[in-house]
Amino acid sequence: MAILPELATQVLVPLAAVVGIAFAVAQWVIVSRVKLAPSGDGARDKDVLGDSLIEEEEGLNDHNVVAKCAEIQNAIAEGATSFLFTEYQYVGIFMSIFAVVIFLFLGSVEGFSTKTHPCTYSKDKECKPALFNALFSTVSFLLGAITSVVSGFLGMKIATYANARTTLEARKGVGKAFITAFRSGAVMGFLLASNGLLVLYIAINLFKLYFGDDWEGLFESITGYGLGGSSMALFGRVGGGIYTKAADVGADLVGKVERNIPEDDPRNPAVIADNVGDNVGDIAGMGSDLFGSYAESSCAALVVASISSFGVNHDFTGMCYPLLVSSVGIIVCLITTLFATDFFEIKAVQEIEPALKKQLIISTVLMTVGIALITWLALPAKFTIFNFGEQKEVSNWGLFLCVAIGLWAGLIIGYVTEYYTSNAYRTGAATNVIFGLALGYKSVIIPIFAIAVGIYVSFTIAAMYGIAVAALGMLSTIATGLSIDAYGPISDNAGGIAEMAGMSHRIRERTDALDAAGNTTAAIGKGFAIGSAALVSLALFGAFVSRAGVKVVDVLSPKVIIGLVVGAMLPYWFSAMTMKSVGSAALEMVEEVRRQFNTIPGLMEGTGKPDYANCVKISTDASIKQMIPPGALVMLTPLVVGTFFGVHTLAGVLAGALVSGVQVAISASNTGGAWDNAKKYIEAGASEHARMLGPKGSDCHKAAVIGDTIGDPLKDTSGPSLNILIKLMAVESLVFAPFFATHGGILFKLF
Amino acid sequence: MAILPELATQVLVPLAAVVGIAFAVAQWVIVSRVKLAPSGDGARDKDVLGDSLIEEEEGLNDHNVVAKCAEIQNAIAEGATSFLFTEYQYVGIFMSIFAVVIFLFLGSVEGFSTKTHPCTYSKDKECKPALFNALFSTVSFLLGAITSVVSGFLGMKIATYANARTTLEARKGVGKAFITAFRSGAVMGFLLASNGLLVLYIAINLFKLYFGDDWEGLFESITGYGLGGSSMALFGRVGGGIYTKAADVGADLVGKVERNIPEDDPRNPAVIADNVGDNVGDIAGMGSDLFGSYAESSCAALVVASISSFGVNHDFTGMCYPLLVSSVGIIVCLITTLFATDFFEIKAVQEIEPALKKQLIISTVLMTVGIALITWLALPAKFTIFNFGEQKEVSNWGLFLCVAIGLWAGLIIGYVTEYYTSNAYRTGAATNVIFGLALGYKSVIIPIFAIAVGIYVSFTIAAMYGIAVAALGMLSTIATGLSIDAYGPISDNAGGIAEMAGMSHRIRERTDALDAAGNTTAAIGKGFAIGSAALVSLALFGAFVSRAGVKVVDVLSPKVIIGLVVGAMLPYWFSAMTMKSVGSAALEMVEEVRRQFNTIPGLMEGTGKPDYANCVKISTDASIKQMIPPGALVMLTPLVVGTFFGVHTLAGVLAGALVSGVQVAISASNTGGAWDNAKKYIEAGASEHARMLGPKGSDCHKAAVIGDTIGDPLKDTSGPSLNILIKLMAVESLVFAPFFATHGGILFKLF
Repeated sequence: MAILPELATQVLVPLAAVVGIAFAVAQWVIVSRVKLAPSGDGARDKDVLGDSLIEEEEGLNDHNVVAKCAEIQNAIAEGATSFLFTEYQYVGIFMSIFAVVIFLFLGSVEGFSTKTHPCTYSKDKECKPALFNALFSTVSFLLGAITSVVSGFLGMKIATYANARTTLEARKGVGKAFITAFRSGAVMGFLLASNGLLVLYIAINLFKLYFGDDWEGLFESITGYGLGGSSMALFGRVGGGIYTKAADVGADLVGKVERNIPEDDPRNPAVIADNVGDNVGDIAGMGSDLFGSYAESSCAALVVASISSFGVNHDFTGMCYPLLVSSVGIIVCLITTLFATDFFEIKAVQEIEPALKKQLIISTVLMTVGIALITWLALPAKFTIFNFGEQKEVSNWGLFLCVAIGLWAGLIIGYVTEYYTSNAYRTGAATNVIFGLALGYKSVIIPIFAIAVGIYVSFTIAAMYGIAVAALGMLSTIATGLSIDAYGPISDNAGGIAEMAGMSHRIRERTDALDAAGNTTAAIGKGFAIGSAALVSLALFGAFVSRAGVKVVDVLSPKVIIGLVVGAMLPYWFSAMTMKSVGSAALEMVEEVRRQFNTIPGLMEGTGKPDYANCVKISTDASIKQMIPPGALVMLTPLVVGTFFGVHTLAGVLAGALVSGVQVAISASNTGGAWDNAKKYIEAGASEHARMLGPKGSDCHKAAVIGDTIGDPLKDTSGPSLNILIKLMAVESLVFAPFFATHGGILFKLF
Repeated sequence: MAILPELATQVLVPLAAVVGIAFAVAQWVIVSRVKLAPSGDGARDKDVLGDSLIEEEEGLNDHNVVAKCAEIQNAIAEGATSFLFTEYQYVGIFMSIFAVVIFLFLGSVEGFSTKTHPCTYSKDKECKPALFNALFSTVSFLLGAITSVVSGFLGMKIATYANARTTLEARKGVGKAFITAFRSGAVMGFLLASNGLLVLYIAINLFKLYFGDDWEGLFESITGYGLGGSSMALFGRVGGGIYTKAADVGADLVGKVERNIPEDDPRNPAVIADNVGDNVGDIAGMGSDLFGSYAESSCAALVVASISSFGVNHDFTGMCYPLLVSSVGIIVCLITTLFATDFFEIKAVQEIEPALKKQLIISTVLMTVGIALITWLALPAKFTIFNFGEQKEVSNWGLFLCVAIGLWAGLIIGYVTEYYTSNAYRTGAATNVIFGLALGYKSVIIPIFAIAVGIYVSFTIAAMYGIAVAALGMLSTIATGLSIDAYGPISDNAGGIAEMAGMSHRIRERTDALDAAGNTTAAIGKGFAIGSAALVSLALFGAFVSRAGVKVVDVLSPKVIIGLVVGAMLPYWFSAMTMKSVGSAALEMVEEVRRQFNTIPGLMEGTGKPDYANCVKISTDASIKQMIPPGALVMLTPLVVGTFFGVHTLAGVLAGALVSGVQVAISASNTGGAWDNAKKYIEAGASEHARMLGPKGSDCHKAAVIGDTIGDPLKDTSGPSLNILIKLMAVESLVFAPFFATHGGILFKLF
C-alpha cells in the first residue's frame, strides 16, 4: 500500500486548493492596493482615482488621464459583462435541455429501473441502479458547467479590473506595469486551478455518501463534470472567439487599412468592442478551455482508476493520485510565481519575455521533483491498471515517467510553437500568406512527434491510464500557464487604454513591449492547450471504448473506417463554420464602422464621438447567433453517430477527429501567430531589416496587416475551438457510453 | 463459370486498347489536318504556316500573326521539352537506385534463395522463389515508371502542338477553337488510358510465361507496375507543380500587381515560363497522376483477386475483370467523345461548359450500362473474395454495385467541387482570403460523405476487392476525364498565345471563354483525382495489410495510434515543403522579372525584348532542386517506418495519411479554385455585381489577384500532390510488404 494514509490525502487535496485560492485572493488584494481604492469596484474607481498614485512619482498628476482610463475600463468591463450574461442566458437554456437529455438517455439504459444491477467490470458485485448513475451524472454535468462558467467569469472580472491599473502603472515604469498584469493573471490562474480541484474533490466525497462501495458507478457519474466543463468551454471559445475577431478584424479593416489611423485609436467606433473581445475570447474562453481539459483528464484518469486495482481494492490515496498531482501542481506554481513577483524584478523591456519563459521552465523543473515525490508517497510500488479487458501491472516509477513525459512534452510543444510564431516576414501580401501557411504546416511536425512519443511511452507503460496522467502532467502547471496566458490580453488591453486615453508615446511603448511578450506566451499557451487536448481526448477515447465494451477498434472494418474518414472531416466542417462566422460578423462590423465615419460629423477630426455601444451590440449579437451551428455540430455528432451507427463507428469518428483536428488546430494557431508577429515586427522597427520594411502605412506593412487579419480567425477562433471539438466529442461519448452500448447502432441493426 | 470464355477476354482487352490508341491517333490526325501541315512538327510549322488556313475565312490573312503564334508555340514546346528531359535525368537516377532497392529488399525476404517456397496464402502449394518475385517486381516497377513518363510526355507533346492551333482556330469562331482543343485533349486521354491497359495486359501475359500456375507470385510482382507509375507521378506533380506556380506567381506579382500589365503580356519576361508551366504541371503532371491511380487500382484489384476464388480456381476471365472494366471504359469514352466532336456543334460561348459537363454525364450513364454488361458476362454468379484471412462470398450483382457506386461517387465529387469553386467574391483582400479558406473547408463535407458511403457499401459487399473495383469504377471514364482536363491548359495556353501574338480583343475573349470552362472542368478533374486516390489508397492499404499478415489494425494499440497521429501529420509536412518551394521559387522569379524590367531598355514600352529563357531556366532549376525533399519524404517514410517500426505502425501511418490527406487535398484545391474564379469573375465583368467590383486594376480586383496568387500553390502544387502522397505510400508499402513482414520493426524488436 501507499505511504500516504487516506486521512492525509483527505487533508492535502482540499488544503492545496484552499491555499491556491488564498494566494489568488492575496494577489488580487496586492493589485487593488497598489493602484486604486481598496474596494476594487469598477464603478467606484472613478471617484477615488489617482489618490494613491499621484504622490509616488513625478509626472503622474494628470487627473484627467486617470479619469479617462477609469471611464474606458468601465466601458470595457460593462461590455464584457453584458456579453457574458447574454451568452449565459443562451448557454443556460442549452445546459437545462442537455441535462434532461443526459438524464433520459442514461436513465433508459436499464429502463429507468431503481434496482441494483451487476457491475459492468466486476460482474460478481452489485452496483447502484443506472437511474441514479444518470441522476448523479446530470448533477456533475451541471457542477462542471457552473464551475467552468464561474472560472471564465472571474477571469474576465479580474482582467477588466487590472487592465487600466496596468496602464497607470506603466507611467512608473515597465517593471511596475509588468508585475500588475502578471499578478492579475495569477489571480485567474490560481482561482481556476484551485476551484476546479476543490469542486471535484467535494463532489467525489459527497457522491461517495450515496455510492459507498460502488466506485465504478461513482467515478462513472463524475465524468459528467468533465462534460459540463467542456461544453461550456465550447460556447465560451466559439462565442468569445467570434466576438473578439469580428471586432478586431472589423476595427482593423476600416481603421488601419482604409482610414490609416492607429490601432486602438479612440476615433474608431469598434475599439471598445475590440478590447472587450480580448477579455471574453482570450481570457474567459481560454479559462473555460483549460478548465475543461483539466476536468476531463482528471475524470478520464479517475474512471480508468476506478476499474483498476485502486478502485477494486478501495485504495483511496491511489485512487486520488490524479487529484494529488494537481494539488502538488498548485503548490509548485505558487512557488514559481514568487520568482516573477518577489525574487526578481523586471527593470527593462527586454527582461519581460525571458522572465515569462523562465516561469515555464521553473515550474516544469520543480514539478518534476513534485511528481516524483507524490508518486513515491501516494502509489504502491506495484499495482494493476485496466487495459481493455485485462489488468496490466504497472510500477509507481513507470507512472512517474508517464506524468513527467506529459509535463515535458508540453514544454517542448510550447517552445516549438513560440519558435515558429516568432517574428518573420516575407515581402508582399500573397507571398507573406503563402509562407505563413507553409510555416503553420511545418510547425506541426515537432509537436506531433512529441505527442507521439508521449503517447507511445505512457500507453506502453500504463495503457489509457498512462495517457490520462500524461495529460494531467501537461496540465499540472496550469496555474502558471494560465497566469502567463491571462497576462497577455491584460497587457493588450492596457495598451489599448493608453492609446484611447491619449497617453504619451512612452507609455504606449511600454505597454506594447508587455503585449509583445504576451503574444509570445500566448502562442506557448495555445501549444499547451492543443497538446493537452490531444492527450486528454485520447484518454477519454480509451475510457469510452472500455465503457462501451469495445474490444478492438479495427481500421479494417467498414464501420470503423467510415467513422475515421468522416471524423477527420469534422475539424474542417467546424472550421468552415467558425471562419465564415467571423468573416460575416466582421463585414457587418466594417459596415457599421464605415457608416459611423461617414455619418458622424467630426469623427475623423476627433471632435465627434463614436457610438461604441452599437459596435459592442453587433459583436454580441453576431457571436451569440453564430455560435449555435458549430456548437450543435460538436454536441450532436456523438449523439447521432452513437445512436444510429453505434460504438464502432463512433470510435472511428473520435479517432479521426483527434488525429486530424490536432494538425488543423496547431497549424491554424501558428500560422495566425506568425502573421501577427510579422506585423508587430514591422511596427516595432527594432532591427535594420524591420525599419527597411516599415514604417506603418508602407506597402510591406499593409501586406503584413492583411496577413494578420487573415490569421485572426485562424489563431483565435477556429484553431483554439478545435481543441474543444476533439475533447468534447470524446467526453460526451464517454458519458453516453452506457446508452450507446445498450441502445446504439439503430441503423446497422435495421439493415 | 463466367459467360465470357478466356479466349474472348484475351481478344477483348488488347482490342479495346488498340481501338483506343487508333482513335487517339485519328484525333491527332484531324487536329493536324484541320490546321497546319500534316507532319505536325513544331519546327516545320513556321515554314508552312497559314497555307491551309488563309483561304477558309475572311480576316485570316495575317501571315505575321500566324508566324508569331508558331514562334511562341515553339518557345513553349522547347521550354517544356527541356524541362521534362532535365526532370527525367534526375528521375532516371532515382528510378535506377530504387529499382536496385526493390530487388535487394524483396530478394532478401528468403535470403536470395532460388528455391521454391510454400505459398503465402495457399500453404499447401509451392510458389516461385522470392528472388524471382523480386526480379519481376523490379521489372514491372520499371515498366510502370516508363509508361507513366511516356504518358506524361505524350500529353505535353500534343498539348504544345495544339495550343497555337487552338488560337488560330479561334479566329474562325469559338466552336472551331473548342473542337481543336477538345480533340487534342482526347488524344492524351485515349493514349494514356489505352497505353496503361495495354502495357499491363502484355506484362501479365509475359510474366505468366514464367509464373505459370503461381498466380499469387505473378500478381504480387505486377504491383510494381503501380509503384512505378505513381513514383513518376510524384515527381511529375511536385516538380511540374512547383515549376508552373513559381512562374505563374512570379509573373503575376510583378506583371499584374506591380506593373499593371495584363496576364500573358509579351513584355512580361516570365510569360513563356508561365505557359510552359501549364504543360508540364497541369498536363504532364495530371496525366502521370491519373495513370498512377489507374495502374494502382488495377494492381490492387488484381492482387486481391489472385488470392480469391478467381486466382485459386484459375478463372482467367474473372481474374481479368478489372482490365475488362477498363476496356469497356475506353469504348464508352470513345462513344462519349463523339457527342462533343461529331453529334453536336458548339456555336456560342455559353454552350461550352454544358457541353463539357454533358461529357461527364453521358460517359457515366453509358458506363453504368457497360459495367452491368461486362459484370454479367465476365463474372460467375457467385464467387469468393479474400477478406483478411477468410473467404467472403460475393455475387456478380454485388460487385456491379461496387463498381457503379465508385463511378457515381466520382461524378458527385466532381460536381460538388465545381459548385464550390464557381464564381464568388467578397470585398477586401483579407475577407476574400478568410471566406475562401472557409469555403475550401466546407467543400470537404459532401465529397467525404460520398467517399464514406462508397467505402461502406463496397467494403461490406466485397471487402478490399470491392474498394479496389469502386476506385476502378471511378476511373473507368478516365479517357473522357483526361480529355476534359487536358482541354483546360490547352485553352489557357491558347489564350496566352493570342495575347502574346497581339491578336484582337475578340480572339482573346473567345479563348478566355474556353479557358473559363476549362477552369471549371479542371476543378471537376481534381475532384476525381482526389476521390479516386482515396479509394485506391484504401484498397492498396487493404492489400498491404493482407500481404503483411496483419489481422487487425487496432487503434487501441500504441504502435498503431502513434502511426495514425504521425501519418495524419505527413500531409502537413509535405504541404509545408511544397508551399515553401513555390514561395521561394516565385520570389526568385519576381527578382528576375523585376531585374529585367529595370535593366532592359524599352521593355515596358514594347521596344525591348525580354529574356524569356532565363525565366524558364529559373523555374526549371528551382523545381528540380525543390522536388527532391518532398519526394524523399514520401518515398522514404514507408521504408523507414516499415523497417524500423514494423507493419502495425506502418498501417497506422497509411490510415492516418489517408484520412487526413484527403481533407487537406480537397480543401486546398477548392480554396485555390474559388479564389481563381473570383478573380476571373471580376475580370470577365459579366454581371452588374462583377462590373461594380471591377474593372481590372480596381481595389477589389487587386484583392482578388492576391487571393488567386495565394491559391496558386494550394490548388496546383500542394493539393494535387497530396493525392500521390497517400497513394504512393500505400503502394510502396504493398510492394515491400513481404520484406517488412519478414525483417521489419527492428526498433521494437530491439527494445
